[in-house]
Amino acid sequence: MKKENTSFILKGNVCYSKSPKEAAFIKDACIVCSDGICGGVYKTLPEKYKTLPLIDHRDALIIPGLTDLHLHAPQYPFRALGMDLELLEWLNTNTFPEEAKYIDLEYAGKAYTMFVEDIKKGATTRACVFATIHAEATKLLMELLDKSGICAYVGKVNMDRNSPEYLCEASAADSAQDTASWIEDTLHGYERIKPIITPRFVPTCSNELLERLGTLAKNYHLPVQSHLSENPGEVAWVKELVPDAAFYGEVYDRYGLFGKEVPAIMAHCVYSDEKETERMLQNGVYIAHCPQSNTNIASGIAPIRRYLDMGMHIGLGTDVVDGYSTSILRAMADTIQVSKLRWRLCDHTLKPVSLEEAFYMGTKGGGSFFGKVGSFEEGYRFDAVVVEDSDLVTPRLLTLRDRLERVVYMSENCKIKAKYVDGVQL
Amino acid sequence: MKKENTSFILKGNVCYSKSPKEAAFIKDACIVCSDGICGGVYKTLPEKYKTLPLIDHRDALIIPGLTDLHLHAPQYPFRALGMDLELLEWLNTNTFPEEAKYIDLEYAGKAYTMFVEDIKKGATTRACVFATIHAEATKLLMELLDKSGICAYVGKVNMDRNSPEYLCEASAADSAQDTASWIEDTLHGYERIKPIITPRFVPTCSNELLERLGTLAKNYHLPVQSHLSENPGEVAWVKELVPDAAFYGEVYDRYGLFGKEVPAIMAHCVYSDEKETERMLQNGVYIAHCPQSNTNIASGIAPIRRYLDMGMHIGLGTDVVDGYSTSILRAMADTIQVSKLRWRLCDHTLKPVSLEEAFYMGTKGGGSFFGKVGSFEEGYRFDAVVVEDSDLVTPRLLTLRDRLERVVYMSENCKIKAKYVDGVQL
Repeated sequence: MKKENTSFILKGNVCYSKSPKEAAFIKDACIVCSDGICGGVYKTLPEKYKTLPLIDHRDALIIPGLTDLHLHAPQYPFRALGMDLELLEWLNTNTFPEEAKYIDLEYAGKAYTMFVEDIKKGATTRACVFATIHAEATKLLMELLDKSGICAYVGKVNMDRNSPEYLCEASAADSAQDTASWIEDTLHGYERIKPIITPRFVPTCSNELLERLGTLAKNYHLPVQSHLSENPGEVAWVKELVPDAAFYGEVYDRYGLFGKEVPAIMAHCVYSDEKETERMLQNGVYIAHCPQSNTNIASGIAPIRRYLDMGMHIGLGTDVVDGYSTSILRAMADTIQVSKLRWRLCDHTLKPVSLEEAFYMGTKGGGSFFGKVGSFEEGYRFDAVVVEDSDLVTPRLLTLRDRLERVVYMSENCKIKAKYVDGVQL
Repeated sequence: MKKENTSFILKGNVCYSKSPKEAAFIKDACIVCSDGICGGVYKTLPEKYKTLPLIDHRDALIIPGLTDLHLHAPQYPFRALGMDLELLEWLNTNTFPEEAKYIDLEYAGKAYTMFVEDIKKGATTRACVFATIHAEATKLLMELLDKSGICAYVGKVNMDRNSPEYLCEASAADSAQDTASWIEDTLHGYERIKPIITPRFVPTCSNELLERLGTLAKNYHLPVQSHLSENPGEVAWVKELVPDAAFYGEVYDRYGLFGKEVPAIMAHCVYSDEKETERMLQNGVYIAHCPQSNTNIASGIAPIRRYLDMGMHIGLGTDVVDGYSTSILRAMADTIQVSKLRWRLCDHTLKPVSLEEAFYMGTKGGGSFFGKVGSFEEGYRFDAVVVEDSDLVTPRLLTLRDRLERVVYMSENCKIKAKYVDGVQL
């Protein structure tokens, strides 16, 4: 990281979202970064900025930093392995045995270093990350992420029931106590990393545990992340476990973990019914849409068009490693693609997601969980990614929108030339 | 291309298909290439081969060359552009205006060079390629592909109705005459490239044209490639155009273009009904499954499990550029992914496609259109791809099958170290 100067000008071809329907595409423009805050985008630089150092990225694209609203760092070692299972089987076969290894700090260090190196190289600048139930390994992950320069919420996971013995906390009280100590240790421990309350999901969290976590969230005013209505088997199980809940998410809501008291991210929402959706809207819950994961473990396709049209908060998640790709650009492409299949196969009233909408979700949509993040509008935190797309050859003359479309679909053939978080180049 | 020696040994970690259900994974093995033909895979090299030069690819994976059964070379310039249309709109808006440009040989040279460079870099060793209606530009493409070293069938496209004036041949007779001259010019013109009869699809080909093409196919004993039952609107249109046909494919079958008289590849087959499927099976038609294309232009998801279980001939196509990726490894991953969504959303009786099945389709399944191609069994033509997967870090110890699974899903993070066609290194 080069920390010296967080006031400067970036020059290049600038693309950013204003709203789900509107993106700005400005050729050969200057973006002002003033003490880590965006001072606007200019075709002609105002006089007052002319003394700032200017970094000219020439023909490259400059887009806002990307936000990954949902991923599991400890699952990185088995990405793209054992890809023939559904959620509940997947957890028992792939996930839980791997996560159990993080009691061993040496293993955790090795695996988390690989994960962080990958994230660092990519276009993600902010993330909401699940760790494991192990407080020490979670702290190690937070430390490594902090050093990488990206901003993140990281959660020590809670699970006190329906979990294998080797990955089950002794009691709700123990789990909450461990979590409280971990919060105390980490709340002010890092420059860019904050703790987040992380009940794995209703099946592995007793009511008592959820209640205790709700109290912690409220007392420390910490946000919450969890899973919601991902898979039909899971939804049916929750109905069995909490038969008097009106809907899956109501279980979280009872305990102050569903966006009303503190901000909350719910991953997936593939099977959220009308009541659940309505409550999410009322409470301002963030939906982390994870299209690759929903495909890989055959969960289904979330009705993102409906959520977008209702004006809900939506961002994108890679869900590493149910999604094997760590790229939010790929998640944008996947979002559009699965929305087309949903339109074709399930529901002609829900039109496919557009490029502008997918770009919004991966930048400003998810970014807003972190405040004014994910755009180059004035006053936004200066997170930027410089993308070199010169390997995507064509004899055509392309507009900037064309180029962004190609970057989204063929991001693996592009290079990330530079990445800035809060005006700091990583 | 290094042509000197087509007898040698390749050493590395060898993966190849035996059948849709069974793949071989052999660590530190030697593959014998004897005059361009595979002489078997050995853990311990037989005495008689010990004098052959040995190329040790150490820890890399060696897989058979990949066959792309369906792609459109002239569409390469607009890959990943204008991705919000269905088939018939897509043709009119994106495809036809671009294809019209290939009347200009200078443009064709520029665009086809970019296309061929891309294919050359990738893992594809054999391909069945659509060009345009322009014979001269098609010859240029054949020449460029021949120089690249890959083996291909290339088709001058035929279309004499329902096409924009700027891309419509004057009459069935003219179209057939042009095609006959082009066949004469190209049948023995290249070392690795052969012509293939290529009616675009029923909507743009009159009965008279199809009849004439059937005669050409028979007289020259040339194979056929076309499109079939891709999109509901297209299927309905064919029903209107040829109301007495029992099914879409019957129109091709009437004129000897459906696998009975000469081999035929039909791309897509998303909506093939029972009668059509039955006829394809009887005739030995090859299905080119193009999952990314079927997603991008919202065609749907083909019932590949059904075709596999019936024992039909199936290979994979990238369908550049309805599919923007030129990678058959990516097509394998897409095949598995969309089959999961189909299982979840449409039909629980059709189980998702396995890794072994997708790998088969992209190697031996599609390869068999070219003869004994796509495996390392003895007697197969020696097409091989050496894949370096060392960037896919993990703290785990992986089996060879694990590694192949990761290569399939994360091929963009792997390197193609070497590629051989008929024992010649490209």
